[in-house]
Amino acid sequence: MDFMTDFKPLTVQPQEIEARSFEMITEELGEHPFTEEQYSVVQRVIHASADFELGRSMMFHKDAVQAGIKAILAGKPVIADVQMVQVGISKPRIEKFGGDVRVYISDADVMEEAKRLNTTRAIISIRKAIREADGGIYAIGNAPTALLELIRLVKNGEAKPGLIVGVPVGFVSAAESKEELAKLDIPFITNLGRKGGSPVAVAAVNAISLLAERQV
Amino acid sequence: MDFMTDFKPLTVQPQEIEARSFEMITEELGEHPFTEEQYSVVQRVIHASADFELGRSMMFHKDAVQAGIKAILAGKPVIADVQMVQVGISKPRIEKFGGDVRVYISDADVMEEAKRLNTTRAIISIRKAIREADGGIYAIGNAPTALLELIRLVKNGEAKPGLIVGVPVGFVSAAESKEELAKLDIPFITNLGRKGGSPVAVAAVNAISLLAERQV
Repeated sequence: MDFMTDFKPLTVQPQEIEARSFEMITEELGEHPFTEEQYSVVQRVIHASADFELGRSMMFHKDAVQAGIKAILAGKPVIADVQMVQVGISKPRIEKFGGDVRVYISDADVMEEAKRLNTTRAIISIRKAIREADGGIYAIGNAPTALLELIRLVKNGEAKPGLIVGVPVGFVSAAESKEELAKLDIPFITNLGRKGGSPVAVAAVNAISLLAERQV
Repeated sequence: MDFMTDFKPLTVQPQEIEARSFEMITEELGEHPFTEEQYSVVQRVIHASADFELGRSMMFHKDAVQAGIKAILAGKPVIADVQMVQVGISKPRIEKFGGDVRVYISDADVMEEAKRLNTTRAIISIRKAIREADGGIYAIGNAPTALLELIRLVKNGEAKPGLIVGVPVGFVSAAESKEELAKLDIPFITNLGRKGGSPVAVAAVNAISLLAERQV
C-alpha cells in the first residue's frame, strides 16, 4: 500500500478511525466467550494494544461491568495507580456524574511514608486511596504491589472497592497478583499472564464509562 | 505459588524488581540481532510490554541510539504525541542536560487550528512542534497521523528531527506509518506491525536517557 497516494483515507477523523478499527477487531477475533457488555471492554483493550492474545486473556467477575457502571453513575472516583493511567482516562464522562480521576502515588505524604516504612509508594498510595476513596474504581496498570495490597485489604475486610481493574504488566509478581485477584468474589476485571499495562487499564475504564453514559 | 506466604519477596524495592525482570528477559529472549546499545532499548520495551514478539519486531536506523544520546546531551527537547507519553518519560535525566519533555496536542491553538482545517490535532501538533522544537526527539506512541505528518515534513526538507521514536499502535494506518518511517535514512526507532503504544515510546526514550547519563 502506497500511503502517499492513499493519504486522504489515512487522515480521517479519529471517530472514523476508531469505528473502522472496531469492525476489524470484531471480524478478526471471531468467536469469543464474552457477554456483550464484557466484549465492549475487550474490544477496547484490543484496540489499545493491537494484541488479540491479551484480549482473549481478559477475565471478568460476573458483576464487574455492572458494578463499574453503577460506581460511575453514583459519582464515585476512579483511582489510578500511576500518572499514565490517570491522564489516559477520559474525564468528561466521569465528571458529568460527579466523579473524578485521582492518582496518589506522587503525593508528598505518600513518598515520605513509603521511605519511612521502607516499602513501595504503590502500597502506601493504595492505603491512602482506601482511606479517601473506598467504593471507587481502582485502575491498576503498572504496580503489582498496589494490586497485592488492595487484595490484602479486601481480604482483611478493610476495603470494599466498587470495581478493581487489575491489569499490571511485568515479569515479577504481575501474573501472580492477577491470579490472586481472580480468586476474589468481588467485582474485578483482570487478565491472565504477564501482559497488561496502562493502556489496558485506561481502555477498560473508558469502555465502562461509555456504557454508563449510554445507560442514562 | 501462595503469594501470602511469599509476600516479602514480592514487596522488594522497584530497583530490585527491575533488575530481576531484566535478567529474566535476557535469559528468555536468547539470541537476537541487536547491538548492545540497541538491546538496552529492546530490553526496556519488553520490560514495559511483557511482549517478546513486540521486542523482536523493533527496528533501528544505524545511527538512532547515538543520535538520541547526542540530542539529550545537547539539551534538546523531547516531544511526546500524547499526554500519556509525556508523563511516562523520566524527566530528571533529560532536564539535567537542559532539555524538557513537551506535548502540544491539547494546546488551545492546536485544537482551534485542527478544527479550522478539519484535520487531526495530532497533525497540527507536529507542525507546531517542528516550529518550536526541530532537532528534538519525537516520541510517537499513539497517533499514526502525527507520524505520517512528521515523515511528510522530513521528506519535504521542512523538518530535521534529532531522532524519531515512531511506535504508534493500532489497526488503521499504524503499521503503514511505521513502514514509511523505516524507509527514511534519518535516525529512527520503530517496530513492524500493529503493536506499539505509549509504554513502548516511553521505554525507548527512558532507555536512551539512561545511556546518555552513563556516557558522561
